[in-house]
Amino acid sequence: MNNFIYNIPTKILFGQGQVRNLGKELLPYGNKVLFLYGKNSIKRSGLYDEVVKTLSENGISFVELSGVDPNPRIETVKRGADLCKEHGLEIVLAVGGGSTIDCAKGIALQAKYDGDVWKDFYEDQKYENLKDSLHVASVLTLAATGSEMNGNSVISKLDTNQKLAIGSDKLRPVVSVLDPTYTFTVSKYQTAAGTVDIMSHIFEQYFSPDKGAYLQSRMMESLLKTVIHFGPKAYENPEDYEARANLMWASSLGLNGLLSCGKKNTDWATHMIEHELSAKYDITHGVGLGILTPYWMEYVLSPENVHRFVDYGKAVWKIPGTDSMDIARKSIEMTREFFINLGIPERLREIDIDDSKFEEMAEGATCRGPLGIMKKLEKKDVLEILKMAL
Amino acid sequence: MNNFIYNIPTKILFGQGQVRNLGKELLPYGNKVLFLYGKNSIKRSGLYDEVVKTLSENGISFVELSGVDPNPRIETVKRGADLCKEHGLEIVLAVGGGSTIDCAKGIALQAKYDGDVWKDFYEDQKYENLKDSLHVASVLTLAATGSEMNGNSVISKLDTNQKLAIGSDKLRPVVSVLDPTYTFTVSKYQTAAGTVDIMSHIFEQYFSPDKGAYLQSRMMESLLKTVIHFGPKAYENPEDYEARANLMWASSLGLNGLLSCGKKNTDWATHMIEHELSAKYDITHGVGLGILTPYWMEYVLSPENVHRFVDYGKAVWKIPGTDSMDIARKSIEMTREFFINLGIPERLREIDIDDSKFEEMAEGATCRGPLGIMKKLEKKDVLEILKMAL
Repeated sequence: MNNFIYNIPTKILFGQGQVRNLGKELLPYGNKVLFLYGKNSIKRSGLYDEVVKTLSENGISFVELSGVDPNPRIETVKRGADLCKEHGLEIVLAVGGGSTIDCAKGIALQAKYDGDVWKDFYEDQKYENLKDSLHVASVLTLAATGSEMNGNSVISKLDTNQKLAIGSDKLRPVVSVLDPTYTFTVSKYQTAAGTVDIMSHIFEQYFSPDKGAYLQSRMMESLLKTVIHFGPKAYENPEDYEARANLMWASSLGLNGLLSCGKKNTDWATHMIEHELSAKYDITHGVGLGILTPYWMEYVLSPENVHRFVDYGKAVWKIPGTDSMDIARKSIEMTREFFINLGIPERLREIDIDDSKFEEMAEGATCRGPLGIMKKLEKKDVLEILKMAL
Repeated sequence: MNNFIYNIPTKILFGQGQVRNLGKELLPYGNKVLFLYGKNSIKRSGLYDEVVKTLSENGISFVELSGVDPNPRIETVKRGADLCKEHGLEIVLAVGGGSTIDCAKGIALQAKYDGDVWKDFYEDQKYENLKDSLHVASVLTLAATGSEMNGNSVISKLDTNQKLAIGSDKLRPVVSVLDPTYTFTVSKYQTAAGTVDIMSHIFEQYFSPDKGAYLQSRMMESLLKTVIHFGPKAYENPEDYEARANLMWASSLGLNGLLSCGKKNTDWATHMIEHELSAKYDITHGVGLGILTPYWMEYVLSPENVHRFVDYGKAVWKIPGTDSMDIARKSIEMTREFFINLGIPERLREIDIDDSKFEEMAEGATCRGPLGIMKKLEKKDVLEILKMAL
């Protein structure tokens, strides 16, 4: 097990009705809030009113910013930061899914930063400049990205077709409300995409050729089993509280840092390739991941790392037998079938993506160097995976 | 899944050499420390000097209090609190195992409390009085209790033969150093006892008749598998870093609150009975648990809760078959065998405990009402379990 720092101070208020406790939990951090959300669905569902109520009851004033996009834009970050500066706001409260929370982190950063956060952080990763930010809090309405409990933020810049990520402990939300009933209205399509996204986050941390971090691997298998058990249940019966609750808590635990603590290395190649896809085509992140993942698995599988697939196949899919390569291939096939059964397309062409930008995407994905750790992927490898997925 | 609050802000510095970062991590909380430890073994091992070095390098002054006992006494708590008041100390730094850390929490509480913490908290659980305490930090030298990451404290009062526990988020250490190499010198006996203690904490949370909290159950199984995999390795080869590291991190995750978040109820009967044993006979906690646990399992097993034992037997011990009661009984037998192979006695008589205080202990364990949730244990039930274990 490698040395690590574990530091996950986000306070989680989990369960039905917890939003009523949000206001008093925010008070230690300030009483002027930027209330950030996406579409008006939170008004229809009544969540908007519940948030306003808990803020008002605790004497917290707020300025609203709505219209955050699914792949949130740097322009929204700038607009939010300007509002925070103009009104002297202290907390950015995101009410929505991962996109809204990611956007809130960008805003919290830009509001306390004189330079351009896009250039200095998202492009150049100059974390040494990250001295201060506003506090971030969230009310989660979609189980997928884990942004409610981690310091990651992915922002897009459409004019340059870029989608870039940052990550810092300083950007972790101080408080997040996780109420599974808010995800009852999530569509089948987005439920499937969220399920894939949660699994993909775990895959990215699980699949590495090193054999250490036994405890972490077993925990990841337990989370994968949970998501595989409940994903189809939530897909079939959107108001299954137990399914929604397990998916929601798995999404947070899957990417809050706990699983990778002590691991020598993690992969993240599939995410880097998918970011190119959704930057170019504005597709749903989880759908891109669902298409790419089985092809990535097939491409990287080798005698040197087959043991990870064997662990995965046996623990998660209960595949019997002793032939390692056979178990590995079956585990990939079962992963693909699971995604297909959730309505995830099998190939890029099914979502109208052709090979015209493959070169550009392979170039973009590897412009900071080769990707991943299961197999180091150069531009040609990324191109090959995209072609397999076509 | 039940509603819950997740709030685990303890920062963990994990791995070899991390103690060198302790001083700077303490600075946000103060620069006057009570340096609390047990025996002089930390002087022989060099850990004492390392702690002094990191404190000195960061301008942190300290007052020492040594001689904390394995079942720490309320008298030590009082002495420590007096020292803190006298010298205006801000942080209680425990360097040792769970006993030392538990003692530090009592001290931190008493140092900021005008009344008698023994009476008001350990006896009467008046948590509404818990407004303030000093900060607690730790350097862990024994993987067992999880005290390094939770708000629990168990203290003994020898003149009345009492051993009582409290638990509050406010007593969680702010920083804990977990360096597996500090456990290389832990004896086989204490390694076995620690392994049992970690498993018992998970059992107490795992074994409940309700069928919810799927995710939590799978995570607990993953931790049990880890401890069962590495306990014997550490027992056989005390300097196996990977084994010591997995046990250490499992001990923290096993009782930091994560596993019980969302569970409807947990049991803790075995712990309550064992506290009576070690209060009366000053035995090692993990040894008492190791003797009692299989008998408790046999006593509580019923058609209503057999499904929990089936989950346990299949996931953790890979027991085949379809007869539930058969799988359950085999899982209990395998648990017993595992403990015996670690040198844990099978019966109380092997550690010179007879039935002379059984009545008194059964009375003491149930004086606040019946124990547990797998089966509600009255005084007569506790007596029966003690007799089975004789």
